[in-house]
Amino acid sequence: MSKSGMSGDAAAQVCCTPLSGPPLGEAAAAELAGVFKALADPVRLRLLNMIASAADGEVCVCDLTAAFPLSAPTISHHLKVLRKAGLIDGERRGTWVYYRVVEERLTRLSGLFALPALTSA
Amino acid sequence: MSKSGMSGDAAAQVCCTPLSGPPLGEAAAAELAGVFKALADPVRLRLLNMIASAADGEVCVCDLTAAFPLSAPTISHHLKVLRKAGLIDGERRGTWVYYRVVEERLTRLSGLFALPALTSA
Repeated sequence: MSKSGMSGDAAAQVCCTPLSGPPLGEAAAAELAGVFKALADPVRLRLLNMIASAADGEVCVCDLTAAFPLSAPTISHHLKVLRKAGLIDGERRGTWVYYRVVEERLTRLSGLFALPALTSA
Repeated sequence: MSKSGMSGDAAAQVCCTPLSGPPLGEAAAAELAGVFKALADPVRLRLLNMIASAADGEVCVCDLTAAFPLSAPTISHHLKVLRKAGLIDGERRGTWVYYRVVEERLTRLSGLFALPALTSA
């Protein structure tokens, strides 16, 4: 079972084409809808924001948990959803897990919403 | 009541800051989660793809309905969700409504996932 819930190749296919580009197939649309479902929660968005903006590129789960008035299991659940969607990755070092964003996935989501440059004004 | 479910100013605030930027407030995270909830459906993603890739920038609801094995009311519901999220806008001309993407919103979503350029390799 892949760590992110889908293979790297599938993730690439889902996200590398802009919405203004060629037709999105049913399978790709379903995978992509799953990624947006993971993003459709305010706490998960704020967690992703904290991880994406971390000065040294990663955040200890201890700091993420401390930032919300939520239980550690609840934060863990949200992090698991983000991880399964391929948006973040975690590495255990000693007592704690350290999270960082999957830059490739974020860049592909950015490209998804990119519009073609206007050829004339 | 605003057509898109939120004012233009609110929409701008929600989407113009990258996730790798300053902290996302609770209100902004909630608004943004609503936009991703609208995107978290395969049919809505494929509708948005059809509208975003339309050669002349807009698509008749008649063509959108014809492209899916779904009833007209179901397609209308999905279009309404996309419209409330500020992702598309529609204009009635005669019998049909014609839809186009709200380019500003898509561009801001693109910016949301943009990562800062690396300062060194």
